[in-house]
Amino acid sequence: MTFAELAQAAKEAAVELAGLNRGRKDAALLAMADALYAARSDVVAANGRDIAAGRDNGLSEALIDRLTLTQARFDGMVDGLRALAALPDPVGDVVRGWTLANGVRVRQVRVPLGVVGIVYESRPNVTADAAGICLKAGNAALLRGSSSALESNRAIVAALRRGLAVADLPEAAVQLVEGGREATGELMRARGLVDVLIPRGGAGLIKAVVEGSTVPVIETGSGNCHLYVDAAADWRMALDILVNAKTQRVSVCNAVETLLVHADIADQFLPAAIARLTDLGVTIHGTPRVGEYSAKVVPAGEREFEEEYLSMDLAADIVDSIDAAIAHIRRYSTGHSETIVTQDRAAADRFTAEVDAAAVLVNASSRFVDGGEFGFGAEIGISTQKLHARGPMGLPEMTSFKYVVEGEGQVRE
Amino acid sequence: MTFAELAQAAKEAAVELAGLNRGRKDAALLAMADALYAARSDVVAANGRDIAAGRDNGLSEALIDRLTLTQARFDGMVDGLRALAALPDPVGDVVRGWTLANGVRVRQVRVPLGVVGIVYESRPNVTADAAGICLKAGNAALLRGSSSALESNRAIVAALRRGLAVADLPEAAVQLVEGGREATGELMRARGLVDVLIPRGGAGLIKAVVEGSTVPVIETGSGNCHLYVDAAADWRMALDILVNAKTQRVSVCNAVETLLVHADIADQFLPAAIARLTDLGVTIHGTPRVGEYSAKVVPAGEREFEEEYLSMDLAADIVDSIDAAIAHIRRYSTGHSETIVTQDRAAADRFTAEVDAAAVLVNASSRFVDGGEFGFGAEIGISTQKLHARGPMGLPEMTSFKYVVEGEGQVRE
Repeated sequence: MTFAELAQAAKEAAVELAGLNRGRKDAALLAMADALYAARSDVVAANGRDIAAGRDNGLSEALIDRLTLTQARFDGMVDGLRALAALPDPVGDVVRGWTLANGVRVRQVRVPLGVVGIVYESRPNVTADAAGICLKAGNAALLRGSSSALESNRAIVAALRRGLAVADLPEAAVQLVEGGREATGELMRARGLVDVLIPRGGAGLIKAVVEGSTVPVIETGSGNCHLYVDAAADWRMALDILVNAKTQRVSVCNAVETLLVHADIADQFLPAAIARLTDLGVTIHGTPRVGEYSAKVVPAGEREFEEEYLSMDLAADIVDSIDAAIAHIRRYSTGHSETIVTQDRAAADRFTAEVDAAAVLVNASSRFVDGGEFGFGAEIGISTQKLHARGPMGLPEMTSFKYVVEGEGQVRE
Repeated sequence: MTFAELAQAAKEAAVELAGLNRGRKDAALLAMADALYAARSDVVAANGRDIAAGRDNGLSEALIDRLTLTQARFDGMVDGLRALAALPDPVGDVVRGWTLANGVRVRQVRVPLGVVGIVYESRPNVTADAAGICLKAGNAALLRGSSSALESNRAIVAALRRGLAVADLPEAAVQLVEGGREATGELMRARGLVDVLIPRGGAGLIKAVVEGSTVPVIETGSGNCHLYVDAAADWRMALDILVNAKTQRVSVCNAVETLLVHADIADQFLPAAIARLTDLGVTIHGTPRVGEYSAKVVPAGEREFEEEYLSMDLAADIVDSIDAAIAHIRRYSTGHSETIVTQDRAAADRFTAEVDAAAVLVNASSRFVDGGEFGFGAEIGISTQKLHARGPMGLPEMTSFKYVVEGEGQVRE
C-alpha cells in the first residue's frame, strides 16, 4: 500500500470511529488487550530479532534498553489497553452551551481529532499505548516507529488489528507507517489526510518534525527543568525535593536539570546538597561560585545550562535575587516544569506568575507533572507548546470540538 | 529595526503584558481608542494616499473597496477598542483545579499566548481590531498587513502606540512588520520568538502561511459552506434560510456556496428557490438535474462545487439520499459551517454527528456562525482547523494556560 492509500484508509476508518459509542470502543480495547496477550510469544520473538539486529548494528546499550520489551513492559502494554477501557470517553462531552437572543441553541461538543500521526523512537511499547489512546478518543492512528523496532512494531500492530477485527471495527484504525525516511516526509506533509502529528522522542526528532511538517504538530517532551531554592526556603524541604526531582528517575522530561540557589541560603543549603547528591552519584556542573563549596563540583559554562541531561548530572548556579532566577529560567527553559521552593508567599506568587512554562511548582517535586500523577489515567505525552494542549496530555487533549447550532428557521437580520 | 530586534522587543513586551490586571489593559484600550480618534484626519489622509496609489497600480474595485476606511469603518475601529474594554478578561481564569491524593494542589490557569503574529490583506481596520484583541488577552501583536495599505496601517499603529504610551504600557506591544516578502518569511520562521501566527485573508494567503511557517498557525476563514434541504424539510423555511445564508452578505466565509436538495422535495422546492434567487440576482450553477427546473440555471461541473464564490453565485445539485448529501459535503467542504433543513429528528442527528465541520446547523442560517452572533463580543477570525480553536475565535481562544502546582514538600514515591 502506498502512503496515500494508507492515509486514505485511516481517514475512512476515522469517520467510522467518530460515530462509535463508548461501549463499542471499550469492547475493542479489551479485544486488543486480549489479542496482544495471546500474541506474546510472537511479539517477544520479534523483539528478540530487533535486539539482535540492533546489537549487530552497534546500537548503544541505552538504545538496546529502550528497545527491549521486558516482561513488565509487555504487561504494561496489555494493562494499559485495559485501563483505557475503564476511563471516561471524552467524545460527546458538551463543553458549554447557550441560547442566542433569537432562540437559536448553540452547543460546543467534543469530537475526535480524526487521523493522528505519532512519530516515535525505539520504544515499541509506545505502539500499543498510542494506538489505544487514539482509539479511545475516536481517532485513527498512523504509527511511525523506529526502523530499529520494526519487527516488534509489526507484531504488536498485527495483534492489535486482530483485536479490532474481533470487535468488528476497521483494521485501518491502527496502521504502521513503514518505509524509509521518505515515508516520514509523506506523513509530515499529509495535510488534509492527517489532522495532527505528535512526535515523541528526543530533541532532534521533535525539531525535525516541527520544521518539516505542514500538518499541525503538538510538540512534546523537551524538559530543561529548573529548581530555584529561594532565600526564604525551608532548606531541608528543598533538599528532599531536589533529590527526588533529580534522581527518582533521570531519563524523563520532568526531572530537574538545573539548580539555582539564592545567595542568602547558599551557605546552609549547598554543602548539604552537594554531599547528598554526590553520594547518590550525581555529577554537579557548577559555576565558580558553586565550586567554592566543594572540590567535587566540576566547572559549568553556557552549554551545561542549555543541556537536558536525562542522566545523573545537574547544572548549578547561585543567584542574588528571585529576579535573577526568573531571568535565568526565561533564558534557558524549554517551558516544561519549573519549581520554586520557598515559604515566602510573595516570592511564590511572583514565580508562578512570571515563569512561562507548562507547569510551575511551589514546594513540590516536578516529577508530579505527569498524566498519571495528575490523575488523567492515560497520557500521550507532555506538551511544551502553547497551542491546543500544554502540559500532560490525556484523552480530552486528543479531541477537538464542533459547534452544533439548532433553530426553528431563524435567519440573520 | 531588523525583524529579529522587533520580535525580541515584542517578546519582552509580552512578558510585561502577561502580568497586567484587567484594569490596566482596559485603560490602555480606552487610551488607544482616544488616540486613534484624535488621529482620524491623519489616518484618513494616509488611507487616501493608499487608495490613490492603489488606483495607479491598477487594483481592482473590490480591492479598493476593502482598502477604503469609510467613516463607518473608522468608527468601527474606535468603537471596537472601547467594546473590548467592556469584555471580561480571560487571563487568570481557573479552567479547572483539583487536589492529588498526597495533598498537592493543581490548578489550570489561563495565560496569554505571548507574541501573536497576524498576517492579513488589504483591510486596514484589521490593524486596530487585531491589536486590540491581542492586547486584551495579554498578547503582544506583530501585524503584517498588505503593502497596499502600508500608509494607513502606519498611521493606525502610530496612533495605537501613542495610546499605549499614555497608559504607560510598552509600545512594542503593537508593532507593524514592514518590508518585502522576506519579512513575511522571517515572521513565519520566528519559532521561539512568535508563539502563533493567524493568517486572515483569502485561500492563497492562508495556504502560503500554512506551508511556509515553522511557527504554529491557526487557519481561519475558508468557507465552502453547504445547505442541504432534506426530504423532510419545511420547504418555505428552507427557502428563507437559503436566501439569508446566500445573499444577506456574500463576501463572508459563513455564506452558503452550494445547495443540495433531496430528490423527493425538489419539485416543491427548486422552482420557488430558483425564482427567488434569480430575482435577487444570484446565478445558479447547477447540474443537469437542477437545470431541468429552469433555463436560468447555468451548467456546473466539478470546479463549481469546489469554489468558494464569495459572490452572488451558488452551485446546486439534487441528491437521492442524506447519505449522498453527507458524502458530497465530505468531499468538498472546507470544514467551516454546514447546514441541514429538516423536520426529521433522525436526519438532523445523523447530519450533526457525521458532518465534520467547525459548525453544523439545523434549521438556522449559517450566517449565525460568527463571534458577534455567538455573543463573544470580539472575534479574531473563524478557525477551520481542529487544533486549539475551531469555529469563531474570541478572547479565550487567544490564550493558553499553565498548570500551577502547589505543595508542602511532597515528593514522588
